Amino acid sequence: MVDVTAKAATSRTAVAHAFVRMQRATVASLRRLKSPKGDPLEIARIAGITAAKRTSELIPLCHPLALTHVDVRAKLCQNGIDIISEATATGPTGVEMEALAAASVAALTIYDMCKALERGMEITELYLVKKTGGRSGTYVRPAIPPPKVSGRRAIR
Amino acid sequence: MVDVTAKAATSRTAVAHAFVRMQRATVASLRRLKSPKGDPLEIARIAGITAAKRTSELIPLCHPLALTHVDVRAKLCQNGIDIISEATATGPTGVEMEALAAASVAALTIYDMCKALERGMEITELYLVKKTGGRSGTYVRPAIPPPKVSGRRAIR
Amino acid sequence: MVDVTAKAATSRTAVAHAFVRMQRATVASLRRLKSPKGDPLEIARIAGITAAKRTSELIPLCHPLALTHVDVRAKLCQNGIDIISEATATGPTGVEMEALAAASVAALTIYDMCKALERGMEITELYLVKKTGGRSGTYVRPAIPPPKVSGRRAIR
Amino acid sequence: MVDVTAKAATSRTAVAHAFVRMQRATVASLRRLKSPKGDPLEIARIAGITAAKRTSELIPLCHPLALTHVDVRAKLCQNGIDIISEATATGPTGVEMEALAAASVAALTIYDMCKALERGMEITELYLVKKTGGRSGTYVRPAIPPPKVSGRRAIR
Amino acid sequence: MVDVTAKAATSRTAVAHAFVRMQRATVASLRRLKSPKGDPLEIARIAGITAAKRTSELIPLCHPLALTHVDVRAKLCQNGIDIISEATATGPTGVEMEALAAASVAALTIYDMCKALERGMEITELYLVKKTGGRSGTYVRPAIPPPKVSGRRAIR
Amino acid sequence: MVDVTAKAATSRTAVAHAFVRMQRATVASLRRLKSPKGDPLEIARIAGITAAKRTSELIPLCHPLALTHVDVRAKLCQNGIDIISEATATGPTGVEMEALAAASVAALTIYDMCKALERGMEITELYLVKKTGGRSGTYVRPAIPPPKVSGRRAIR
Repeated sequence: MVDVTAKAATSRTAVAHAFVRMQRATVASLRRLKSPKGDPLEIARIAGITAAKRTSELIPLCHPLALTHVDVRAKLCQNGIDIISEATATGPTGVEMEALAAASVAALTIYDMCKALERGMEITELYLVKKTGGRSGTYVRPAIPPPKVSGRRAIR
Repeated sequence: MVDVTAKAATSRTAVAHAFVRMQRATVASLRRLKSPKGDPLEIARIAGITAAKRTSELIPLCHPLALTHVDVRAKLCQNGIDIISEATATGPTGVEMEALAAASVAALTIYDMCKALERGMEITELYLVKKTGGRSGTYVRPAIPPPKVSGRRAIR
Repeated sequence: MVDVTAKAATSRTAVAHAFVRMQRATVASLRRLKSPKGDPLEIARIAGITAAKRTSELIPLCHPLALTHVDVRAKLCQNGIDIISEATATGPTGVEMEALAAASVAALTIYDMCKALERGMEITELYLVKKTGGRSGTYVRPAIPPPKVSGRRAIR
Repeated sequence: MVDVTAKAATSRTAVAHAFVRMQRATVASLRRLKSPKGDPLEIARIAGITAAKRTSELIPLCHPLALTHVDVRAKLCQNGIDIISEATATGPTGVEMEALAAASVAALTIYDMCKALERGMEITELYLVKKTGGRSGTYVRPAIPPPKVSGRRAIR
Repeated sequence: MVDVTAKAATSRTAVAHAFVRMQRATVASLRRLKSPKGDPLEIARIAGITAAKRTSELIPLCHPLALTHVDVRAKLCQNGIDIISEATATGPTGVEMEALAAASVAALTIYDMCKALERGMEITELYLVKKTGGRSGTYVRPAIPPPKVSGRRAIR
Repeated sequence: MVDVTAKAATSRTAVAHAFVRMQRATVASLRRLKSPKGDPLEIARIAGITAAKRTSELIPLCHPLALTHVDVRAKLCQNGIDIISEATATGPTGVEMEALAAASVAALTIYDMCKALERGMEITELYLVKKTGGRSGTYVRPAIPPPKVSGRRAIR
């Protein structure tokens, strides 16, 4: 574990993204009747927030951090579900892993709840969107033209 | 949670995949000198195996299962790290989520250990490769031609 | 921990109950606009199900059990929220504690999400409604006339 | 999760209460011979303290907090066991949920250890007694005349 | 993780031992007045039992097991506290690690509770006393005269 | 739990030690071919670091602490594996237990990975080497000649 003892406790934020690609028919089912297990988007949101708080248990060399804010938003698209997560803490190290863990577990939760409808779903585009704070300052993911095949399209 | 009380306990396996896409320079650094935190591939393997055992804590509607085998293999490619995970259990429900959780946390661990080198890494192609057992029987992911832009290439 | 090695693995179920008593104005707020944190009833349901799976971590002398089903239903009443939980497993010991833990954590979650509206809420009537299976067989809580002061009344 | 990033870290305390109502014969058994599983009051105390430290894992939208003190006291009454818990932390948000989780898990632990004697026990009167600190300041639960039926009576 | 899928589920037991060596004055204090934190022997017992249930979370390549019995006994000696733990399960793999984890965490708990009295305490003689079941059958630790020089010797 | 609310948050460090005594043949096997489960020393290191972060879950009266550094080093000796762990945090209480938990779980992990080779391994010399910070200041373990008779003596 990197020694962060001497680093100043500053305010840190991170935003991460994930996408669960699925067939249009699966998205349509989700819109019509919710899964038999409950509302997948709300359950995914809760699962992602809860996972963020356990990041340092999951990732061996992550430092424990007292998160002051976590949020996850999941949105239906034509060809899948788009997930944005945010994490904030005041501490000696960043919250990128917390945001990524939240997005990742939210995506896995959606997979779990829809897998009876479509086993071929794919989680993709899990990346850091932005982070602020710390010695390395602000990072914003450059606008990369999405790959032609796997791009997602918003529902409206 | 779906009621699986009446389902027979049969042997179940699942194989999942994830890919951590990174720049060639980052892969080269990994090959040359290992990260300052240790060997990322071995640490990712351990993190993935450990996470599989906690899947039902992470995914709200997953059933707890007594896994009899979990393994994770991480392999350097020219443009990233390729991860294959396997899970096995004898029980009334499948182990797809366990395999996906293992691959996902292994990928996040690699991100954590390399993020000082490259913040723009992306976790992609997280999907179920195969599953056996249970009422729905065997599923094998069809061979989908990889998208032109995001395809990975093995190092040798 | 009681030694259950020699007990037969049989099917066990348990149903538990909890009530979160709150003022009518608080219930009305919940109905009108949901809490600022999300839908308390759905979040409580997820929290309760997740907690049931961790019962043996919370209660020192509880045996670990492979639950095959857990559910939690939370319902608005005139003067609070009524919670019913169910748990099922096949094993050498009962699932009473799992059902009670689910109801209890669901109730605490509602408290957490409404506490800005009313700090004086009270969790009450947390008890076992019914259990089946095991050497001691079926137990059904006798119909006790509810105390005059603390009785709950269904909303319709 | 409510964003508490901008809130000042101040000292916070909370006191909570729970009551496990049981028949006099059950209380008498407890006094005579301890349960076969050990001293229920001491085990409940430890379980409650341990649970307080895991509150943010149990309650989905609770913030993680570095508790500086937790205590639980369980006391035999004529008709049950009376539990008082206390929690303290210095942080941007209160410790009400930590105190309530401690009291609740202590009560469940007593249920677990006495359920072979009496399955009809009931956990009741789980509420916040007092909290200090934070923007909303001090809260003290008003003295509510206990309901005629369910009141508890101290043993001496 | 070793693949135990094909192994038969048989009854397994294990007994482990640990010793917390301390000065006679520390033992005497323990006997006279208990530690200010509570009864160390009882708290150690509970901590050890609870830890056994989490062995597969702590030890990366341990299989999860449904323990049917765990017990820990801690006993005052002239020069320390002697700990014996037992674990039992029916499964495809042994419970040695569960018994060792219980003894180990019980010993650490005693250290924690007495460290204000004596920081130089030492945990020693943590070993497997006996195990039964499984393909390798019964193992009983031979009566080994303690090594004359108990220190370690550098490899070169 | 001792109330540390009023104590100043200062920088704390602790170093702990453990030794896994094994036969020379077992050490030789480890050097030749690694265990079939992977590199035990690296896996033990990761397990120890991860365990340090969960110390307050394992030890009932330990305070949760935001560790800023943990490290574990495991080294082959002629007659076993020597483990040194370090932990650092800024907080109102020390990190002795975190360092001891790391060393202890690292040692148990080595046991787990080598137990097929030798069941008679023994974990010994688990002690605090040094700690700094806090009201009681620096402690350094004195060089103690190992007791001639290292066994325990019954109290009567």
